[in-house]
Amino acid sequence: MEQMREPLSGHVGLSEDGRQVRILDQSQLPNREVYLELNGLEELCEAVSGLRVRGAPAIGIFAGYGVYVLARQLPEKAPAAANLAALSGQAGQLAAARPTAVNLAWAVDRMLGKARQALSRGWSGVCAALEAECLAIHREDIAMCRAIAEYGLSLVKEGDGILTHCNAGPLATSRYGTALGPILLGRERGIRLKVFADETRPLLQGARLTAYELGRAGVDVTLICDNMASVVMGNGWVQACFVGCDRVAANGDTANKIGTSGVAILARHYGIPFYVLGPTSTIDLACPTGADIPIEERDPEEIRTLWYREPMAPAGVKCFNPAFDVTDHSLIAGIVTEKGICRAPYTESLKALFFA
Amino acid sequence: MEQMREPLSGHVGLSEDGRQVRILDQSQLPNREVYLELNGLEELCEAVSGLRVRGAPAIGIFAGYGVYVLARQLPEKAPAAANLAALSGQAGQLAAARPTAVNLAWAVDRMLGKARQALSRGWSGVCAALEAECLAIHREDIAMCRAIAEYGLSLVKEGDGILTHCNAGPLATSRYGTALGPILLGRERGIRLKVFADETRPLLQGARLTAYELGRAGVDVTLICDNMASVVMGNGWVQACFVGCDRVAANGDTANKIGTSGVAILARHYGIPFYVLGPTSTIDLACPTGADIPIEERDPEEIRTLWYREPMAPAGVKCFNPAFDVTDHSLIAGIVTEKGICRAPYTESLKALFFA
Repeated sequence: MEQMREPLSGHVGLSEDGRQVRILDQSQLPNREVYLELNGLEELCEAVSGLRVRGAPAIGIFAGYGVYVLARQLPEKAPAAANLAALSGQAGQLAAARPTAVNLAWAVDRMLGKARQALSRGWSGVCAALEAECLAIHREDIAMCRAIAEYGLSLVKEGDGILTHCNAGPLATSRYGTALGPILLGRERGIRLKVFADETRPLLQGARLTAYELGRAGVDVTLICDNMASVVMGNGWVQACFVGCDRVAANGDTANKIGTSGVAILARHYGIPFYVLGPTSTIDLACPTGADIPIEERDPEEIRTLWYREPMAPAGVKCFNPAFDVTDHSLIAGIVTEKGICRAPYTESLKALFFA
Repeated sequence: MEQMREPLSGHVGLSEDGRQVRILDQSQLPNREVYLELNGLEELCEAVSGLRVRGAPAIGIFAGYGVYVLARQLPEKAPAAANLAALSGQAGQLAAARPTAVNLAWAVDRMLGKARQALSRGWSGVCAALEAECLAIHREDIAMCRAIAEYGLSLVKEGDGILTHCNAGPLATSRYGTALGPILLGRERGIRLKVFADETRPLLQGARLTAYELGRAGVDVTLICDNMASVVMGNGWVQACFVGCDRVAANGDTANKIGTSGVAILARHYGIPFYVLGPTSTIDLACPTGADIPIEERDPEEIRTLWYREPMAPAGVKCFNPAFDVTDHSLIAGIVTEKGICRAPYTESLKALFFA
């Protein structure tokens, strides 16, 4: 596997000349480790909607770099205000590539805010400010993941079984990941945890990405189909559930990969604590409850035919294919952020993260 | 599609010359409708373990026919007792092809009992008795499914949404099916139900078989991934869950396709009644609780590579692949049999089916 050339860890960064976003194409894992370099608006949007880059924090980092490389393509001699207007339009398209994860819009807004601040320094000044800002977003994510991993690790002990859903590891973030952070940090420290990874239909992020990342890191990982979580929990093999998040509403309701709410309900039934792990950039205080979070619905062919040698359902059968679901705050034992672990009532504890 | 030549409805029967078992190969659905004619012990066992014939009642019917065609291959002139010993050995292998569904052993035992009774009539007399018996098993299943469908239909009303897991339709039985019986009978009577079919990983019986059967019958069916059941229930789209069963213990604990217990827990959480539908031949009073039911564990490649164009998990990643799970009786609103609907306490109501 070719080494990343960027100084910052993770699978999203800038190309050597700083004019392209460089990513490991997650849609081709675990069979092929292919890096892509992108700078066109259309291909940047497609990388997000086509899940070449995925995971809420990684999408945020990608969007930061994306806005920067788009900015560098605008004519340096043109009036900076005109360039900013053009960049805003392009960035808006990028922000709309997926609706659920708040980090995408968050990173785009942050980059555009920085561009506005730097406008008086001319377009080259704006580009310099944007470069610093996207690197800052990336650096902050690494620090956030590290802090989340530390806090998460305090919730488990040697030998515990952890069930996770989808992929919230380094591929979805920068280093360590969110839900997988405590596991990978524990591994570095010799604290052995036993992980059960839901395969996570229809896009199989658990099978393709979580099993891949954890296996490479030497973690004891067992892959299961989503519908086997109940048995694994019932057998007493799971002491905690760790999942990531795409958006957390002000009351703690959490949007994450489809199937997460089911895992939380099973965990409640079996008396297992269910934890959500994510950076504060994922918390959307402007969103009162989960009912206010838009849920992306995706192509039925992801259920009927994608990945398969031949169709696995009758052609044209009606499908319902939501990409995310909302886990009610009442089912969540704690929300682990880089600033600490929030407990119920979340309306208080989440607000305190921002205004304490 | 070629028509079945047997007088009895369903996808399992005898070939025209009565010397082979004829089945629709379910492992090739929905893409190819291929009928197989089998009479070798090895190919009969492989049809069961390879899921060419599946569904607890259908396996029972198949085992009945299987024992009959095996019996007809034994030398008519040999001592009947020697033939019976040989047949018992072969039938024992057939009964061991899958461990969880009780119908397989039940049908084999019933056939061998009939053979013993007829032994004084010589081997041709035994064969005649066995032919009558396997046809009786098949005919009884049709009647049982019809009665189960009637009882089940009394539990729902026009416009209700029904969530089902795996496949317990005509393919898994004879006519109507068990869990799908009320839906298909309702369809005949103009009572429209809206079905949500879990795709049922790893073998996709919901996608391949339930969506196929219901679609052909003109039922409004929506295919979902297993992990979407929570959202569908949370949206208020489901008024009842109907599932089949492979073995019901004396206390009502029910072994059925992996994932069934998770569906029952979700249904409890959302306040939706969860019903198990199956013939009394599936009830095993000799089995005190679900903990006494053997659960088949299958090949990890079913999770890692089967169906796919290329592997969907790292080669060699550890997998846990149980074929069934046990749903605790406390989660079951009713067990619908051909003799009526049993309610808790099941230790009483199930026994009453047999000794009333």
